[in-house]
Amino acid sequence: MSFELPVFSPPDFDLPGLKNAPDAVLSTVTRDGVAPDGYHATSIYPEYFRIDGQWKLATQSRMDATPVWENGEVRIREFRLLRTGDRVICGRTEDGSEGIYVHQNGFRRESSVPETFAFRSRRSRETAFSRDYDQLYDLLRYERSHGHILWVLGPAFTFDHDARDAFSALVEGGYCHGLLAGNALATHDLEAAWLGTALGQDIYTQRNHPNGHYNHLDTINRVRRHGGIEAFIRQEDVKDGIMRSVVRCGIPYVLCGSIRDDGPLPEVIPDVYEAQDRMREHARQATTVICMATMLHTIAIGNMTPSYNVLADGTVRPVYFYCVDISEFAVNKLSDRGSLSSRGIVTNVQDFIVNLARGLGLV
Amino acid sequence: MSFELPVFSPPDFDLPGLKNAPDAVLSTVTRDGVAPDGYHATSIYPEYFRIDGQWKLATQSRMDATPVWENGEVRIREFRLLRTGDRVICGRTEDGSEGIYVHQNGFRRESSVPETFAFRSRRSRETAFSRDYDQLYDLLRYERSHGHILWVLGPAFTFDHDARDAFSALVEGGYCHGLLAGNALATHDLEAAWLGTALGQDIYTQRNHPNGHYNHLDTINRVRRHGGIEAFIRQEDVKDGIMRSVVRCGIPYVLCGSIRDDGPLPEVIPDVYEAQDRMREHARQATTVICMATMLHTIAIGNMTPSYNVLADGTVRPVYFYCVDISEFAVNKLSDRGSLSSRGIVTNVQDFIVNLARGLGLV
Amino acid sequence: MSFELPVFSPPDFDLPGLKNAPDAVLSTVTRDGVAPDGYHATSIYPEYFRIDGQWKLATQSRMDATPVWENGEVRIREFRLLRTGDRVICGRTEDGSEGIYVHQNGFRRESSVPETFAFRSRRSRETAFSRDYDQLYDLLRYERSHGHILWVLGPAFTFDHDARDAFSALVEGGYCHGLLAGNALATHDLEAAWLGTALGQDIYTQRNHPNGHYNHLDTINRVRRHGGIEAFIRQEDVKDGIMRSVVRCGIPYVLCGSIRDDGPLPEVIPDVYEAQDRMREHARQATTVICMATMLHTIAIGNMTPSYNVLADGTVRPVYFYCVDISEFAVNKLSDRGSLSSRGIVTNVQDFIVNLARGLGLV
Amino acid sequence: MSFELPVFSPPDFDLPGLKNAPDAVLSTVTRDGVAPDGYHATSIYPEYFRIDGQWKLATQSRMDATPVWENGEVRIREFRLLRTGDRVICGRTEDGSEGIYVHQNGFRRESSVPETFAFRSRRSRETAFSRDYDQLYDLLRYERSHGHILWVLGPAFTFDHDARDAFSALVEGGYCHGLLAGNALATHDLEAAWLGTALGQDIYTQRNHPNGHYNHLDTINRVRRHGGIEAFIRQEDVKDGIMRSVVRCGIPYVLCGSIRDDGPLPEVIPDVYEAQDRMREHARQATTVICMATMLHTIAIGNMTPSYNVLADGTVRPVYFYCVDISEFAVNKLSDRGSLSSRGIVTNVQDFIVNLARGLGLV
Repeated sequence: MSFELPVFSPPDFDLPGLKNAPDAVLSTVTRDGVAPDGYHATSIYPEYFRIDGQWKLATQSRMDATPVWENGEVRIREFRLLRTGDRVICGRTEDGSEGIYVHQNGFRRESSVPETFAFRSRRSRETAFSRDYDQLYDLLRYERSHGHILWVLGPAFTFDHDARDAFSALVEGGYCHGLLAGNALATHDLEAAWLGTALGQDIYTQRNHPNGHYNHLDTINRVRRHGGIEAFIRQEDVKDGIMRSVVRCGIPYVLCGSIRDDGPLPEVIPDVYEAQDRMREHARQATTVICMATMLHTIAIGNMTPSYNVLADGTVRPVYFYCVDISEFAVNKLSDRGSLSSRGIVTNVQDFIVNLARGLGLV
Repeated sequence: MSFELPVFSPPDFDLPGLKNAPDAVLSTVTRDGVAPDGYHATSIYPEYFRIDGQWKLATQSRMDATPVWENGEVRIREFRLLRTGDRVICGRTEDGSEGIYVHQNGFRRESSVPETFAFRSRRSRETAFSRDYDQLYDLLRYERSHGHILWVLGPAFTFDHDARDAFSALVEGGYCHGLLAGNALATHDLEAAWLGTALGQDIYTQRNHPNGHYNHLDTINRVRRHGGIEAFIRQEDVKDGIMRSVVRCGIPYVLCGSIRDDGPLPEVIPDVYEAQDRMREHARQATTVICMATMLHTIAIGNMTPSYNVLADGTVRPVYFYCVDISEFAVNKLSDRGSLSSRGIVTNVQDFIVNLARGLGLV
Repeated sequence: MSFELPVFSPPDFDLPGLKNAPDAVLSTVTRDGVAPDGYHATSIYPEYFRIDGQWKLATQSRMDATPVWENGEVRIREFRLLRTGDRVICGRTEDGSEGIYVHQNGFRRESSVPETFAFRSRRSRETAFSRDYDQLYDLLRYERSHGHILWVLGPAFTFDHDARDAFSALVEGGYCHGLLAGNALATHDLEAAWLGTALGQDIYTQRNHPNGHYNHLDTINRVRRHGGIEAFIRQEDVKDGIMRSVVRCGIPYVLCGSIRDDGPLPEVIPDVYEAQDRMREHARQATTVICMATMLHTIAIGNMTPSYNVLADGTVRPVYFYCVDISEFAVNKLSDRGSLSSRGIVTNVQDFIVNLARGLGLV
Repeated sequence: MSFELPVFSPPDFDLPGLKNAPDAVLSTVTRDGVAPDGYHATSIYPEYFRIDGQWKLATQSRMDATPVWENGEVRIREFRLLRTGDRVICGRTEDGSEGIYVHQNGFRRESSVPETFAFRSRRSRETAFSRDYDQLYDLLRYERSHGHILWVLGPAFTFDHDARDAFSALVEGGYCHGLLAGNALATHDLEAAWLGTALGQDIYTQRNHPNGHYNHLDTINRVRRHGGIEAFIRQEDVKDGIMRSVVRCGIPYVLCGSIRDDGPLPEVIPDVYEAQDRMREHARQATTVICMATMLHTIAIGNMTPSYNVLADGTVRPVYFYCVDISEFAVNKLSDRGSLSSRGIVTNVQDFIVNLARGLGLV
């Protein structure tokens, strides 16, 4: 079995409700960062806006932003980035009656018969995940050369020896096109690479090193002395780890600051809204997103990742979004917020990544 | 690296506190199932009792039972099994001063330096489990031919396709000498084997079958009609699954009843104290116990499994006890109750068992 | 605001599909405990069966059992209780076409408009529970004199001083008509009453008593010596606690055995299917069920509690079912199994019961 | 029973190890934000440094920072705030042998006998919390007039009607001297105040409002239009809620930005390290800190809150730190990181705050 890209069916604009739809209303921003009354807010789905009698599909969309008509294009913009004079599309219906059409079922699906007696419809520890793994193997093999795989890592992901190795194998095997994380993930990973511990505890034997609580701070201090992660890796001759793999393979990464940071490492972005902008650059390209063990980053990237992407040649394709976490609460959080297209896997991310790397034949 | 059985060092009975210890006090049971005042209750550790000037090691011990002196042996007996006339050892100290000595450190350990600054001493989702897996691979290879591996399975373990296959591979590979579970595990497993679903949901595709909520009841009804699990497997030509593997390989199993049972299947033991007796027969032989995703059965077997076993040739060896669960609360529950020798792994049991089978080269 | 019993609307049997429905098919049991092929299995909803041209409502129903036509009545029977000669109603449709009609919407509801964009439809730690409390205050005040309130308690419920007091206040205030629990709940409660501890830890100060791990076993041993809970309470002059309150107020209770039991206490029922029968006697009467911190007992009683009850005067009224647990997984487990009418509250049961008693003006 | 401030016992500097201790080594910072080799890192405990033969107690300390000798004082400084020329105290022992003494047991305690058989030493859902509540009532009554109570709120705290009211009652009753939270908490609270919903769901009835997903964005947009929270509250005539209470009572607050923010509200601090500085201003004054349902903020403030505070008159007093969360993992996270003095309460924060307000006689 191998992965096949679902074909996108655009709406039938000849249907009466759409054919006779009015143009969408535009309203002008009068104050930076404040939308006009009645602004439209976007969903994760493909949305079409009728302007000058033409239906325009928004590209590089995201949830909870607003469409701006600019230079003959619909651009999806965060509210804080609105500028005086921007022409915002208004309207809060989704059926075309205000010139706005949200197209929820554009991708052909396997016979998804509505089921009236659906036990266990949400993901829990008791969901059968075998098929998700098989699909993921196929998907990643496809995306490796045809897509853009974005990984989002929680701080503790790198606490375990095998998990680090498995992730590095994925990176070096070509299965990673971008990495989002925070100061802690990078710090723990570099501590592990440099001193063999994470927060002072050996990442293989679990033994606590004497005075090991200094390892964390010493690592940060050393990276800061070298002026950055890359210099640290080179000059300290770091031989393994997540950060070393992404640096070695030239994978772009974003490290976002948070109020719980020690340090931070020099590459970390202190301003969270600048960090959002940098994250969204990744989200715009992503075709598959896999979030592991981080509710904060998962919600952040989930909010800015649409359910579809328009490729350079105009092809509309789905974006796959996975959330892997040991907590049902975290896994189900996204769908509670409306990101209905995400798929949750409830497990320890260490086992997930080792299983994934083994299934792909990498370890 | 391969597994080596730790050598047991008996207590030095020439030390003053032990050399001059008095005989333990014996007191006679005057009412069935009621211990005399001051009875001694056992721990999971090797315990020695001085009787007629000789130190006797209790064999086939367990926690929270009481030692009975009978036919020249110390027998560890549950309170409910005491009979009038039994001679119970009394005393609540553990240092020999009442003729009772609890020997907590009999097995040589790797340099386990006490650590005053031990962050993260308990197991959580963020513990590094790589080494536990490696140790487990080695241990199971050893136990396969030298020990007795007892598996304890929660009801949902069999909901997933790959997990079932992996467990069957372990059974057929010789890594299972006994199985403890409940009515639900066996029922779900047989439903999966017969109809491809668990509680009506396909164990691979996750699709709900039409009227699939009948599958569960139909399976039970059919097994009851056949008179038992083995007959069902044979006559319905069952081709896979946990129950089919243990039956095929002649592995003894105990299915304990619980108040949440439908059915039950004919093999299920309705009386929970009779079930405890049957479970303890397994516990007496076990050298490694692995509990997966069941707090009820884990606590039950944890209570009746000591930290050591005395082999037929008199060798005293450790018993290894693993508790695998996605919930820290469940994993840490045993150690909260005093079963300090248990080792927890916090993950989804589906991934655990697949990883284990892959690590052992079985799938 | 005070509670008002929703009015039940029976089906309109003059509708074509029902008016012309055939009689249900009856099939005879040929082997004890085994249903005939095609048996009907019940849901939690009111179900009507057409026999001799008349629609008969099953009373004292439950989920996953089967309807037996006997002495002019439809009796809902567990499969294991079927006897040779029983005449079982067959058919697996629910719309009347086989003479079986499942009536899901009999109770008038507040405008429950279907909502297509329902965020947060399931209960989590982040659900707003204020209104559930207010409704529960009203409901309990009503049920105190008009209904039958059944409480189902997990083993750790009694670990806390204030929770014990609050629950006792509810019992003594008339808000408890039946209690279901296990050996551990009663043991911990009596240990707390007799020695001030639960598993050796003071239930107020949290201090561990010296040799306190004996308290648990000593309590059981003492109760067994006295021959039972009531004798123990009287002769040891027990002054507080859950068991003392129910005994004092003459509230019937069922203590079900489980394989994790120490002891057990003399009142505990060792055979789980006999225990189910005793539990169902309570379920038949219950109009409100509140389960606290026990997945095992909650699923057990949930399976045997229908969504409605037929009172002696023929009134059909709803049965309210609450599941209070700190784990979303546990709270949502019931609805995953089809018991759709249950309402979950995600919190620590200590706080729940204290809040409830305060809200009812009892403490 | 009422609260009494524990008396601090300074170290006995006449003991040989301390009397003859050398002066601590000072080393000079040569690069901004980088500590010299061998720098000392602080703990949460009172630490004394010997300089010019005198032992100096660090005031306004925090964990994981470094002591700087400056203007005759020891100042505890985050690494990123080190400036070239700063004189950092070096040494990694804690017993005085390098002129550094960590004083872990300065506060008299109730007989805290070491317990070798301590079951259930960590907090779980099964811990008895009654006494924690009683102590908290006493503590808060004391701190109301003698201390500085700092509250730290997670984003979902304000989803519930009664919880909002209870917290407002605490603020208006004088039990809040500072508030730390994020953009989401303030946004949800203002949405609730303005539109009666949180993320579109009624905070009392749980009903989803039509198009309610706009409420969240509309609230942010409206606040941004008004230029800030205070203006919004005044001009929209907001009548209840957390933000309205703190504004009305003049309680200082810090809203920290995060990458998951929508908006943000104008008061939110985008730079997380600037936010840390603002948070630490609060931490320096705090005598009691209560964190509710936020792992991110709890770890952040936990890292910067010491176990003691030196009052203006030189009195050294303890700082009380509570972490209230429904997840054991979150509650135990702090102690895993070394913040040993924190006390966890495992429950839903809605019930916690309502219970607290009722216990203090406020609602």
